Amino acid sequence: MRGLSPVVRGPQYDSARVDGKRYLITPGPTPVPPEVVAAESAPLHHHRSPDFRTLLGETLERLQRVFETEHDVLLFTGSGTAAMESAIANLLSPGDRIVVASAGNFGERWLKLARAYGIEPVHVEHGWGERLDPDRIAAAAGEADTVAVYVTQSETSTGVVHDVESIARAVRPTGALVVVDAVSSLGGVELAVDAWGIDVAVAGAQKALMCPPGLAFASVSPRAWEQSDRATLPRHYLSWRVAAESQRKNDTAFTPAVTIVAALHKALELIEARGKDAIWAHNRRLAYGAREGVKALGLDLYGPDDETSAMVTAFLMPDGIDGQKCYSILRDRHGIVLAGGQGKLRGRIMRIGHMGFMNEFDIVTALAGLELALAELGYRSPVPGAGAARAIEVFAGG
Amino acid sequence: MRGLSPVVRGPQYDSARVDGKRYLITPGPTPVPPEVVAAESAPLHHHRSPDFRTLLGETLERLQRVFETEHDVLLFTGSGTAAMESAIANLLSPGDRIVVASAGNFGERWLKLARAYGIEPVHVEHGWGERLDPDRIAAAAGEADTVAVYVTQSETSTGVVHDVESIARAVRPTGALVVVDAVSSLGGVELAVDAWGIDVAVAGAQKALMCPPGLAFASVSPRAWEQSDRATLPRHYLSWRVAAESQRKNDTAFTPAVTIVAALHKALELIEARGKDAIWAHNRRLAYGAREGVKALGLDLYGPDDETSAMVTAFLMPDGIDGQKCYSILRDRHGIVLAGGQGKLRGRIMRIGHMGFMNEFDIVTALAGLELALAELGYRSPVPGAGAARAIEVFAGG
Repeated sequence: MRGLSPVVRGPQYDSARVDGKRYLITPGPTPVPPEVVAAESAPLHHHRSPDFRTLLGETLERLQRVFETEHDVLLFTGSGTAAMESAIANLLSPGDRIVVASAGNFGERWLKLARAYGIEPVHVEHGWGERLDPDRIAAAAGEADTVAVYVTQSETSTGVVHDVESIARAVRPTGALVVVDAVSSLGGVELAVDAWGIDVAVAGAQKALMCPPGLAFASVSPRAWEQSDRATLPRHYLSWRVAAESQRKNDTAFTPAVTIVAALHKALELIEARGKDAIWAHNRRLAYGAREGVKALGLDLYGPDDETSAMVTAFLMPDGIDGQKCYSILRDRHGIVLAGGQGKLRGRIMRIGHMGFMNEFDIVTALAGLELALAELGYRSPVPGAGAARAIEVFAGG
Repeated sequence: MRGLSPVVRGPQYDSARVDGKRYLITPGPTPVPPEVVAAESAPLHHHRSPDFRTLLGETLERLQRVFETEHDVLLFTGSGTAAMESAIANLLSPGDRIVVASAGNFGERWLKLARAYGIEPVHVEHGWGERLDPDRIAAAAGEADTVAVYVTQSETSTGVVHDVESIARAVRPTGALVVVDAVSSLGGVELAVDAWGIDVAVAGAQKALMCPPGLAFASVSPRAWEQSDRATLPRHYLSWRVAAESQRKNDTAFTPAVTIVAALHKALELIEARGKDAIWAHNRRLAYGAREGVKALGLDLYGPDDETSAMVTAFLMPDGIDGQKCYSILRDRHGIVLAGGQGKLRGRIMRIGHMGFMNEFDIVTALAGLELALAELGYRSPVPGAGAARAIEVFAGG
């Protein structure tokens, strides 16, 4: 009776090794829709061909619509950090005064980048997991000769989406430029670059835009262009001027990642077909289900328990349980990749990403896997299946 | 009798629009083998997963074997120019003396990059299409306090592969570091980084390595590491130290283009299976067929008529014929993408690339298409089919 013998499927069952099925439920890279994979694997365009120029031109226009800007959106082959670095190198000169406001790992990246260029920022430091305070930031920006303020929209290390609209409004009277790291938020939550008066927003392809990583973007306002003309820090590969001169001819200054551009072109088409409002509402809904499910498992949220956690749900590990172990069990035994904690939060929290090509069943899967992994580590859900059940209840309208 | 009516297939026949078939016979991006496309389109790895770390570790080891170095090969998500820029930003400080030797468009890129960082190089200028002269370069490098010499291995704007082995040997007694742009030559012609005493070689994925563009590399010798510790030019995204610290853990400092890394992993496996010596001989053979074919069409070579033109065959347009027009006809009517001239050679020359995933029939196709396009512009081959015929003769051992 081989094949009919009783099957034991406790938490020790090693699903990932048996079926090889994988789930990326992270803040990025996120899963890539099959249509986008197909676009990426289509025959390679030469980057100087008219076909590619048309593709690039359409992609840049679609990016402008996602950024909600009529001004330049510059494209770089690189990680999101490359676009962030471009916002230091293209805007500043030695000795410039800038303000960096941070409340987590990615906010602190602005500090690292500025210091790498010899700029020591005024640091408006917030506790990790707190919300950035527009008034504190505006007060620091109000000091004489502040060139720019650097902030983060979605702080994926803590799950907080900061209110960059209010920050921009508060900073504007000071005359300082407002630079926003939107690497993990662009396309996932509202970001109205022109309407909100954001001078520079930088973003990446591999988060809410549903693309493989490899491309990064920077929107540049007329005020930012003026400042960049005065800035003397060195740059060439990441030079906005060099990039813009080529882009005005639907060209790139350097050989771009043409397959990822083709993927992005298709992903942005899917995003436009779906509609930004619908996507933002979808992400808020997934976030709500994730938060409720996590709480139903008896876990405490680390990020805010409200709609500002739209991109990432961060939660604390139960006492005595190592988040990195839980992460590894989920990944190696169940094929589910969530995210652990970064920096000082390593081992203490875990994070579920909900953006891009994810839906309700990804959240249910994440919660189900989490319960199995925690059980293996000795933590039991108050009620079996409570996390997934609560999420389903939420998604059913409860 | 529809379908049996006589078909007129003169040079006006618009093949590209009918069958949509495309040929990339350029110095890059080059065609990507189907196995590499499949690897690129496999389900996305999370860049912090053990699967990806294994893939990255193996890829880095394979890159070391291609570079023929036991030292670090650092990987960046970016164009080849990003890796070139890293060799300026990581090695130099304001006021440093460097030598740039150029004989074409890509050699001159070193000048642009250095100047973007405020460094005014000593320029050992050669005519476009000439060979770099090791003695002239060594003489310039012999002046006091020369930190580094920057040269190009394959000058794809002219088709000349420079003798960087002799240049490195000549420069070594001066103590200056030797930095080589191998963006379009790595894997296509011999480059023995350690044995030849090359301190830094930079390269890209999209040429002889048969990958889509998006990744760039820099090999760093112990002497170059020492110099980089003294260098004060700013860098973070392109910092060798930042990259190396992550790579020692089979990790990357920033989210890499994971799909292109997967593609590269497969491409390097194919390259190792084929063997470097066999690949170099294959490219030399294709180059020989291309040169002979071009001459048989009655055209004059622009690059050297010897094995140093192994990567690119450059040739002059007949009097009164615009190379850009010929390029467009080839591309739009026949689906064949060759390369035109760059900079001061625009319109005057055309170039056939022979590297990566190309074979004898690509060269025959390029020559056949060239004859058709030239006929449309009023230039006739001395004998119909002479270019393709001569190439076939060469490939048959003639």
